[in-house]
Amino acid sequence: MTAHDLGHGAAPRGIFGAAIMARLDALAAVTDEPGVLTRLYLSPAHRHAVELVAGWMTEAGMQVALDGIGSLIGRYEADVPDAPVLIIGSHIDTVRNAGRFDGNLGVVTGLEVIRALHRRGRRYPFAIELAAFGDEEGVRFTSTLGGSRAMAGRFEPAVLDECDGDGVSRREALAAFGCDAAAIAAIARDPARTLGYVEVHIEQGPVLEARDLAVGVVTAISGASRGTITLTGRAGHAGTTPMDLRADALAAAAEIILLIERRARSTPGLVATVGQIETPGGAVNTVPGRVRLTLDLRSSSDADRRAALSAIADEAEAAAAARGIGCAIAMTYEALAAPCDARLSAGLAAAAERQGCATIALASGAGHDAMAFRGILPFAMLFVRCRGGLSHHPDEYAAPGDIDAAARVLADFLDHLDT
Amino acid sequence: MTAHDLGHGAAPRGIFGAAIMARLDALAAVTDEPGVLTRLYLSPAHRHAVELVAGWMTEAGMQVALDGIGSLIGRYEADVPDAPVLIIGSHIDTVRNAGRFDGNLGVVTGLEVIRALHRRGRRYPFAIELAAFGDEEGVRFTSTLGGSRAMAGRFEPAVLDECDGDGVSRREALAAFGCDAAAIAAIARDPARTLGYVEVHIEQGPVLEARDLAVGVVTAISGASRGTITLTGRAGHAGTTPMDLRADALAAAAEIILLIERRARSTPGLVATVGQIETPGGAVNTVPGRVRLTLDLRSSSDADRRAALSAIADEAEAAAAARGIGCAIAMTYEALAAPCDARLSAGLAAAAERQGCATIALASGAGHDAMAFRGILPFAMLFVRCRGGLSHHPDEYAAPGDIDAAARVLADFLDHLDT
Repeated sequence: MTAHDLGHGAAPRGIFGAAIMARLDALAAVTDEPGVLTRLYLSPAHRHAVELVAGWMTEAGMQVALDGIGSLIGRYEADVPDAPVLIIGSHIDTVRNAGRFDGNLGVVTGLEVIRALHRRGRRYPFAIELAAFGDEEGVRFTSTLGGSRAMAGRFEPAVLDECDGDGVSRREALAAFGCDAAAIAAIARDPARTLGYVEVHIEQGPVLEARDLAVGVVTAISGASRGTITLTGRAGHAGTTPMDLRADALAAAAEIILLIERRARSTPGLVATVGQIETPGGAVNTVPGRVRLTLDLRSSSDADRRAALSAIADEAEAAAAARGIGCAIAMTYEALAAPCDARLSAGLAAAAERQGCATIALASGAGHDAMAFRGILPFAMLFVRCRGGLSHHPDEYAAPGDIDAAARVLADFLDHLDT
Repeated sequence: MTAHDLGHGAAPRGIFGAAIMARLDALAAVTDEPGVLTRLYLSPAHRHAVELVAGWMTEAGMQVALDGIGSLIGRYEADVPDAPVLIIGSHIDTVRNAGRFDGNLGVVTGLEVIRALHRRGRRYPFAIELAAFGDEEGVRFTSTLGGSRAMAGRFEPAVLDECDGDGVSRREALAAFGCDAAAIAAIARDPARTLGYVEVHIEQGPVLEARDLAVGVVTAISGASRGTITLTGRAGHAGTTPMDLRADALAAAAEIILLIERRARSTPGLVATVGQIETPGGAVNTVPGRVRLTLDLRSSSDADRRAALSAIADEAEAAAAARGIGCAIAMTYEALAAPCDARLSAGLAAAAERQGCATIALASGAGHDAMAFRGILPFAMLFVRCRGGLSHHPDEYAAPGDIDAAARVLADFLDHLDT
């Protein structure tokens, strides 16, 4: 018996963390842009990453296949025939100039946990499929979550005709990658034969760090509304227009930014952000006649989010009207909240408790592959603390100890999962 | 005796207005950019305008000279030898895509008033010099008011080395225009021999229109402070950063925009403007970590302006600090207020009253050639209502009736000026 083989869910602290960090470092070297980490969907770096991870999966006792949409799937068999499947997954594509943890962490954590089972010859009465999706970030093509949506049976063939910035269609890129687009429909899993989907991911936010916790159990992936507010006042000369004859679109915008913030602060779980603002044609010596600002609202409660949006619209229009300023709100995007499965989430929380990890339940404000399974498969997510909440940045960082805790929780969760 | 010759200061209504409009139309055709009015300092269009106006001045009984800095001066002699001089002036350079009234109106109004004197053979115990300055807008070179500053004895030789966007220095441009830069020092007027400077100009603001008045007498050209406020918070993911863990630089900026507005509203005669704002590196889904905004403060009272700036700085720093956000204020420009001469201004007001024009006293929030004479020569300005306060725009407009009123006021003012 080696030091690794202490039994189910009882790997010694630190073993997983060091192994996962080493694999993340190896993956981080696989990039389309030397010097930084950029690994776009169906790119040469994606191809190299698939080959690297496929080798690791094989060594870890999995049977490997690349599916029609470019997801790499490693299957670790059950100890009984005709067993149901649990899917563990995340993504190996990245944004441009990315960090090494986003997505990759979930794939490599699943890999190390399965590798530990393989080394012990341990199998469960369910198969485990480890999914390394390739199309989560949505950098190369407009639509996103192609791999997880295909697995959920939600793939829309129209996206095959989307083109990247070089005019290459997704269909052409898939063919060049060796993927058979005609096989995408067959990727869909049978919910009756699938226990669910579990994803480990860095938090990409500051909550766990603020609470001094290594891991947290996700309650839901927040729904989101996104759009633009355009304020139209009257441009004027900054020197010659008295205060009482102004229709200053930026002053109205300032009121609206603050009322948006007040609404979010008074609605538990809601976040609202004005991320960009511009004064088209503005100048230091001109009273702004026109302002455009963006609005992003998120909540794990769709009802709360919609009520807040409605209140913000009413208050913004009233504030603008009181200044004689036109207010046009154009919401261009809505995503419904995707609640995590209560039973799987409770399983993660119980595993964390057994592993001595205090946790909290928290919403995911960012989108993840898991949300593709909304209404199709039960899913759960385990968040790992990351430094400063930073993500999509080369300084993105999660500590080996926290990663180790996440792997131990996942391993323990598998050990106690009821089929 | 013709219809024009009704005596001093009693030109029939409308005569001046129609003549001035016709000359403004003729001048508006003199442009560096066909289709729009653009007449930059020392450009070919400036050369053609000088020739056109010089011809008009000669017909109106003036002796004409182009001085060393490119100002065209028409001198209408007094009826006694060794008489003092009153200067009437404005500018004939324009911004790009300009209106036809800004500057040109003051020159042409002076011209028509002097022409009416000439036609009647009327002279005063003071000479009149009509100055058509060429460097008011500051579009071609960085510094501005070159013509009026030279006349005030304030010309700084260093500006001869300023270069335009094509790398042509002011010195070279003057030489090509036929101006002798060595003669600039001699342009300075002897204050002991100069009664003052009077300028007619469109208001470039909405006050006269709001009060339904054709003309107004300027109290002072406002002083100004201009600069930038930079707010430094902490960028964050719009979905994953809870409201209570944010350091949102844009929310702080919104508070500051509103406190600036409150301070201006509560300080009579002060105007304060945030004309531009930007969120560098911002995105719809990012909590803004950094915001830059401009600040422009103006008042005819330097004490009020400085007190307001100090209060705004204190309040802005406190508002930012309460959010954990850094606030750096860099004021890069200050111009002192230039008060108009009480006696000359009273003369304009009395003339307006005699001409049946109700007036108000108002500050000029924009800069004008008159301000170059601050502390050197007494000066006064008469503002003419313009539509919608619009200026620096092809739709800039002043009505013939209002222009006519301004010319009658100027003529009447001359008729009653004490030497």
